[in-house]
Amino acid sequence: MDVIEQLRTTLPAGTVVTDPAVLQACRADRSGHVSPGTPLALVEATSIQDVQAVCRIATATGTPVVSRGAGTGLAGGAIAGDGEIVLSTLAMTGILEVSVANRLAVVQPGIFNGELNRALAEHRMWWAPDPASKDISTVGGNIAMNAGGLLCAKYGVTREAVLALKIVLADGRLISVGHRTVKGVTGYDLCALMIGSEGTLGIIVEATLKLRPLVAGTVSTMAAYVDHVDVGASLAAKIGAAGLQPAMMELLDRRSLLCLGKHIGQELTRRGNAYLLIQCDGPAAGEEAAAIMEIIHAAGARAESTTDEATAQAWVEVRRQVLPSLEAAGTLLVEDVSVPRDAMAAMFAKITELEEKYGLIIPTTAHAGDGNLHPSFVFQGAEVPEAVWDAAGELFGHALELGGTLTGEHGIGVLKKRWLGVELGDTQLMLQRQIKAVFDPHGILNPGKVLDPLGAGAAAA
Amino acid sequence: MDVIEQLRTTLPAGTVVTDPAVLQACRADRSGHVSPGTPLALVEATSIQDVQAVCRIATATGTPVVSRGAGTGLAGGAIAGDGEIVLSTLAMTGILEVSVANRLAVVQPGIFNGELNRALAEHRMWWAPDPASKDISTVGGNIAMNAGGLLCAKYGVTREAVLALKIVLADGRLISVGHRTVKGVTGYDLCALMIGSEGTLGIIVEATLKLRPLVAGTVSTMAAYVDHVDVGASLAAKIGAAGLQPAMMELLDRRSLLCLGKHIGQELTRRGNAYLLIQCDGPAAGEEAAAIMEIIHAAGARAESTTDEATAQAWVEVRRQVLPSLEAAGTLLVEDVSVPRDAMAAMFAKITELEEKYGLIIPTTAHAGDGNLHPSFVFQGAEVPEAVWDAAGELFGHALELGGTLTGEHGIGVLKKRWLGVELGDTQLMLQRQIKAVFDPHGILNPGKVLDPLGAGAAAA
Repeated sequence: MDVIEQLRTTLPAGTVVTDPAVLQACRADRSGHVSPGTPLALVEATSIQDVQAVCRIATATGTPVVSRGAGTGLAGGAIAGDGEIVLSTLAMTGILEVSVANRLAVVQPGIFNGELNRALAEHRMWWAPDPASKDISTVGGNIAMNAGGLLCAKYGVTREAVLALKIVLADGRLISVGHRTVKGVTGYDLCALMIGSEGTLGIIVEATLKLRPLVAGTVSTMAAYVDHVDVGASLAAKIGAAGLQPAMMELLDRRSLLCLGKHIGQELTRRGNAYLLIQCDGPAAGEEAAAIMEIIHAAGARAESTTDEATAQAWVEVRRQVLPSLEAAGTLLVEDVSVPRDAMAAMFAKITELEEKYGLIIPTTAHAGDGNLHPSFVFQGAEVPEAVWDAAGELFGHALELGGTLTGEHGIGVLKKRWLGVELGDTQLMLQRQIKAVFDPHGILNPGKVLDPLGAGAAAA
Repeated sequence: MDVIEQLRTTLPAGTVVTDPAVLQACRADRSGHVSPGTPLALVEATSIQDVQAVCRIATATGTPVVSRGAGTGLAGGAIAGDGEIVLSTLAMTGILEVSVANRLAVVQPGIFNGELNRALAEHRMWWAPDPASKDISTVGGNIAMNAGGLLCAKYGVTREAVLALKIVLADGRLISVGHRTVKGVTGYDLCALMIGSEGTLGIIVEATLKLRPLVAGTVSTMAAYVDHVDVGASLAAKIGAAGLQPAMMELLDRRSLLCLGKHIGQELTRRGNAYLLIQCDGPAAGEEAAAIMEIIHAAGARAESTTDEATAQAWVEVRRQVLPSLEAAGTLLVEDVSVPRDAMAAMFAKITELEEKYGLIIPTTAHAGDGNLHPSFVFQGAEVPEAVWDAAGELFGHALELGGTLTGEHGIGVLKKRWLGVELGDTQLMLQRQIKAVFDPHGILNPGKVLDPLGAGAAAA
C-alpha cells in the first residue's frame, strides 16, 4: 500500500487532500519562495490522534512531513516539495480552556492569533505575541517560529508567553513539555527548545499559553515625520536610554514611505523622509507620552499625539500596510536582522551603502524599540537575483559585526540556512544537528529546513 | 601525572586547592545534604581559560567535574564526592559591561546577585531575578538553576532575564549561545536549554543579562495576619482574578510563624495563624494597593499598609528570615512544589493531611503570586528519615495531580532525582538523557545529578 493509501485508510474521511491546486498552494509561503517540487498529499488533521497517525505512517515509510499552519511564514520554513506529506493543523482551532485565575489558556494550534485575542478579550485577558500577521497567522505557527512583532520590547516574544506544549514526535509518540505553573525547573527546558524549532523537532498539537490581564488606562499614540531615518533611530535610542518603555516604537525609512504612499494613494514623503510611530500604554501612558514628546521636541523634531482610539488605530494600520505595499511592488526577500538598539542607525547606514553598491532598492522598517530591522529586497520575477543574495549576505555580516543576529523573528527556514553556521559557529552548529537527530533520528521532520541532518556534508549553499 | 598534578601544572598558582577543610565544605550545599565522598580538588577558576583547561584535563582523564558557585543550592546539585573536581567560578566576579542604551550587562558568573544589583542601581537599572538568597547566591548559580524568587509573577524567572551565555563544553570548547538583541531566532534556543541545566550540560563562564530600568514611583506594602492559611490563599487568588499584579505576594502558614517567631523572639501567632505580605510597585502601585485593601476588607480580614520604605523593608525581612529560622530548628528537606494559582489552598490542605498521616512538622511558605510552595520537612540528625521521603513522594504526587510540578525553582539535583521520571514520563526522560549525551558524551559533567547517563539502568532511588 503506498503512502497516500495508508493515510486514507487510517485517517478520517476528507482529511487527506490530493487536489493539485491545494498541493500547489503548499509549495509556497508568504516569502514568495516556491519549493521545486509538489508534495504527495495534504493532511488536514482534526485531532492529536490524526497527527500521531500521520507521523507513524511517515516513520514507517520514511516519508518527510512538513507541518504547516496558515502559511504566512517569511523564510520558506513551511513549504513542501516532492514526496512530502504536508501536515496542516489549521483545522484544529479549539480553545480548550481559559482560566482567568491561573492566567492561562489551552488552545489547539490552528487558531488564529487575532481570533484567540478577540475571544480572550471577553475574559478581559490577552495573549501578548503580536506579529504584524496576527489576523492571518496561527498560534501554532507563532510558536513554531517564536514570533515577535510590534510589542516585544515591553511584552516579550512568544517564548515568554508559552507555558507548556503537547508535541507529537517524529514516530507518533506524544509528549507534554513545560507546565501550567508560572515556575517550573523539572529537567531541561524542552518547551523553550521547541519554541522556534520550525517544525524540525516535533509537531505542536496543543499549547498552554500565558495570558496577561488587558492593559488598563488610556493609550497614547505619537507619530513623527522626521528628516532622516537616522533622526528616528536616534530618537528611539534616546527614549530607551531615558528609561521609558513604549509598548510600540516603529520606524519606517524613505523607501518604505514611498512604496506605502503609492499603495495607499498618499504622498507620505511630503511630510518627512522617515516615520516614527510610538505607542504608550498602561497606567503611566500619559506621563510617558509627555516625556517622549519632550525628547522629540528637544531634538528639533515635531510629532502629533493622540489618545483617540480610531486615530491611533489608523496610524498603526499605516505601519501594518507596509508589507502589503511592498508585495504589490514586486517579489520580496524580506530580511530580518536584529541589532542592539544603539546600533540601529549604523545598520540603516549599511543598508544605504548596500543599495548603492548593488544598485538595489531596499525599503526598511524597524521595530525600533527592540532593534529588529526588516530590510526588504524588492525585485521582479520569481527567482532571487544573485546580486540580492550577495547583498543579503553582506547585510548579515554587518548585523553580526554590530553584535546582532541574522533573524530576529522570521526564522531560518530555507532562505537563511546558508548563513546559519556563520552566526552559530561550527561547534554549536554540530550540537544543534545532534539535537535534531535526538528528536528526529530518521530526518523526516521538515527536511532541508534550518539544519542539514547529521551525516550530510557541508550546508548546501 | 595524576589529575591533581595536571591541574597544578596547567593552572595559575594558587587556583588548585586541596586543603581538606575546603574540600569538606564542597561536599554539602545549603540543603544540608552531604555527598558520601570527598572531592579530589577544588579549582578556583579566574578566567574562561582556566575553566577550559580544567575541562580539557577532565575529559582527557575521565574525571568528573562539579561546577559550583556559592553553594547555596537547596537540591544537592553542586555537592561533590570521591574522585571529582570541584570547579568554582566564585572568583570570576567581574562586571564586563553595562549598557543602559541596550538594557544589558555582561558579567562573569561568580558575582553575587545582590552585589550586581547594587552596581546596576548606579545606572538606574536592575536585574530582576530575586531569589531569597540573592545576597549570597551568584548570578551563575541563579542561571544554572533558573532561579525564581519573590518577584516572578510580575517580573519573570531567570530564563526571561538572560540574553546570552558563554559556555565551556565538557571537552573544553567554548560556545556562545543566545544574543545581545531583544529578539533572535537563529537555530534552536540553546541559551534557554542551558538555563536551569544544573551544571550537567556545560559550564557558564559569562552571561549577558537583560536589564530593566529601576521601577519608578512609590512602593506600597501590605501585611495581613489572617485566621487560616486558606484565607490567605483565597485572598491571593482573588487579587489575581481581579487582574491586579502585585510585585510580591508571600504567604506564611502557622507552622512557619511559630518557627520564625521563636527565632526572632516575637509571638507572631498571637496576631493570626497565617501571614500574607503583598507589595505593589510601578506607576499604579497606589491604586493597586487600594484595590487590594478593598478585597482584603471585603473578605472580613484586616491588613496594615505602608509606603514607608523602612517599615516595608522590615516586613519583607520577616519573610526572608523564615529559612534561617527553619535551619535553626533542625535539619531540613525544603520542598519546592509549584501548582496553578487556584490550586494553592488544595495544596496546603494536602500538606496538613501529610503532617497528620506521617506525624511530621511541615512549615510551609508560598510565593502566593505564582503558586510556588516551600513545604519544609524539619527533622533531627543528618539522615533524611524514610517517613520524610515517603511524605515528600506523596506531596509531589499531589502537586502533579493538581496540575503542578515537583520543583518550581530549586531544581532536581540529587534530592528530587528519584521523582523526575514521574513528572516527565519515560519518553521525555529518555529524550533528556539523549540531550545530555550530546553535550557530555563521556558523562563527566556533574554526574549523578538530575539525570542518569544513557546506558545506565533505571534511575537510582
